[in-house]
Amino acid sequence: MAEEVDKAVPNGIAPPPLDLPYPDSPETITDNLLKLTELASNPRHKFLAKALITHLHQFVKETSLTTDEWMTAIQFLTRVGQICTPVRQEFILLSDTLGVSALVDAINNPPVNGATESSVLGPFFTDDAPDVQNGESIASEGKGDYLYVEGQVLSTDGTPVADAVIETWETDAKGFYDNQYKSRDHPECRGRLRSDKDGRFNYRAVVPVAYPIPGDGPVGDMLVQLNRHNMRPNHLHLMITAPGYNTLVTAFYPDGDEYLSSDAVFGVKKSLVVSLEDVNDEAEARKRGFAKGASFKLLKRDIILMPEAEAQKAREAFAQEQAKNAPV
Amino acid sequence: MAEEVDKAVPNGIAPPPLDLPYPDSPETITDNLLKLTELASNPRHKFLAKALITHLHQFVKETSLTTDEWMTAIQFLTRVGQICTPVRQEFILLSDTLGVSALVDAINNPPVNGATESSVLGPFFTDDAPDVQNGESIASEGKGDYLYVEGQVLSTDGTPVADAVIETWETDAKGFYDNQYKSRDHPECRGRLRSDKDGRFNYRAVVPVAYPIPGDGPVGDMLVQLNRHNMRPNHLHLMITAPGYNTLVTAFYPDGDEYLSSDAVFGVKKSLVVSLEDVNDEAEARKRGFAKGASFKLLKRDIILMPEAEAQKAREAFAQEQAKNAPV
Repeated sequence: MAEEVDKAVPNGIAPPPLDLPYPDSPETITDNLLKLTELASNPRHKFLAKALITHLHQFVKETSLTTDEWMTAIQFLTRVGQICTPVRQEFILLSDTLGVSALVDAINNPPVNGATESSVLGPFFTDDAPDVQNGESIASEGKGDYLYVEGQVLSTDGTPVADAVIETWETDAKGFYDNQYKSRDHPECRGRLRSDKDGRFNYRAVVPVAYPIPGDGPVGDMLVQLNRHNMRPNHLHLMITAPGYNTLVTAFYPDGDEYLSSDAVFGVKKSLVVSLEDVNDEAEARKRGFAKGASFKLLKRDIILMPEAEAQKAREAFAQEQAKNAPV
Repeated sequence: MAEEVDKAVPNGIAPPPLDLPYPDSPETITDNLLKLTELASNPRHKFLAKALITHLHQFVKETSLTTDEWMTAIQFLTRVGQICTPVRQEFILLSDTLGVSALVDAINNPPVNGATESSVLGPFFTDDAPDVQNGESIASEGKGDYLYVEGQVLSTDGTPVADAVIETWETDAKGFYDNQYKSRDHPECRGRLRSDKDGRFNYRAVVPVAYPIPGDGPVGDMLVQLNRHNMRPNHLHLMITAPGYNTLVTAFYPDGDEYLSSDAVFGVKKSLVVSLEDVNDEAEARKRGFAKGASFKLLKRDIILMPEAEAQKAREAFAQEQAKNAPV
């Protein structure tokens, strides 16, 4: 045979040194796979694989999943994978809408000692935000209603954290992030600033608005099937990093939004809901650098960072607590 | 703004008529999602989604999945989706290697009344197999060692089933299906025949050989991580359809293969392991139509089909039994 072949190559691993029965029944299929998984050399991989297999098989058994339903699931997951591009991550969207991202976030960033709580990163962060000085704007004129953000970065013990890097990004008044536009010649509605020597920061922005997560893919179809809206309440993203501190990925959610408690991606926490103050004072508006009129919204909010060691300890304690409540 | 936008469109579904707390903790994330899922209108979708969410969240909680592990999983699933093509289905391979395909097969095709048991379809079936008359060959000369297959298609009550369509396919002596070759100008080692008026069938084939499932993708990487070989024992696929009978997808596994009990996709059942008879008789070889020599292997095996009503009843009873053993 002279044909070229994409050779399927044995991986060279020997048959297992196990006396396995033939997998004649659902029970033996599960048992055999769990026994085979015992042979994994990395203990954490073994633990994760066994937990995954246990739950996956229980799901199939409990639901008596039909062959057609299984094929629908295969096709759904394939569509999710195939719609992914460098700027669209549908598996993260699936994880978000199934509460998994929020759960992983909650487990890995337990709130302690009054630290600012975390929220989901979302898919719209970019690393090319322009450097902005305190008092400057992250949004061009005309991108939305004026918002002024100010606060102080502090440690959980009250010490100001100077020179913390604050990445912040948001939608414009149309509900779009800059990277959702086909033509994006410069970053917009995003900026990178640093807290001053007293930990203080302040910047001009626009009032973000509620928006739908992408609804034109398989995850959008899933939400419709489940009779769930695909909206996120309006919010301002922040990611704060400072040497020695746990990196905080969070967002502030202005109160009053109708989607707050049913956020499609489960990102809102009570402590992250904020009030925007109405300011109507021409002198104040000019002083803050707003170009026109007298009115703007004011968001005053301090950010409390956890020292890294404290965060790590809290994470471990919380993880143990969670695992105790739901043993494999 | 004159720019063109891929508009993210709200799906028009209203905020839920629920008084949901903010999802501040792992428990509230899970609870809120389950409450939202109650609003699905299709009862089966609702049931499946709730079972999936319950197991998925328990998995994350039990394992205290880290943010890095979560990202690894997202990237893994994305790779699985992106490597899929019209002729490669890596999600089915993932399902196969995690025992899910075998489990779905076992649940949907419970063995009753002595019917021939089912086995996994696998990814190599094609619908363009040539029609072959009884006694003819499904493999060209030179494709492997001679194999003669003969038997009778019967109903569970012993009645012969005439005119049953038998699709059969297998590897050549190199361990490849025809559609694994880059250049495939005609189907090879596959055929479609019909049982005669007495339910009998017979055809020439080649002795299939053990082979590795594709190891060059994410599923192959996963098996290596888990220290599992990627081999399937040698086997002959058959799919038998006849009006009024449950379609049987199965395979026969010649005994003696070293991968029988650790088949990478959990396809082997004890009742599907067969003995190949050694025949060394020139007259017999000529009579069966083999071109050269005196020796060939003989596989004698009847196929017992379940009437559709019987199959449906067995399926329902088995599903209820399974669900009872593992309540949601």
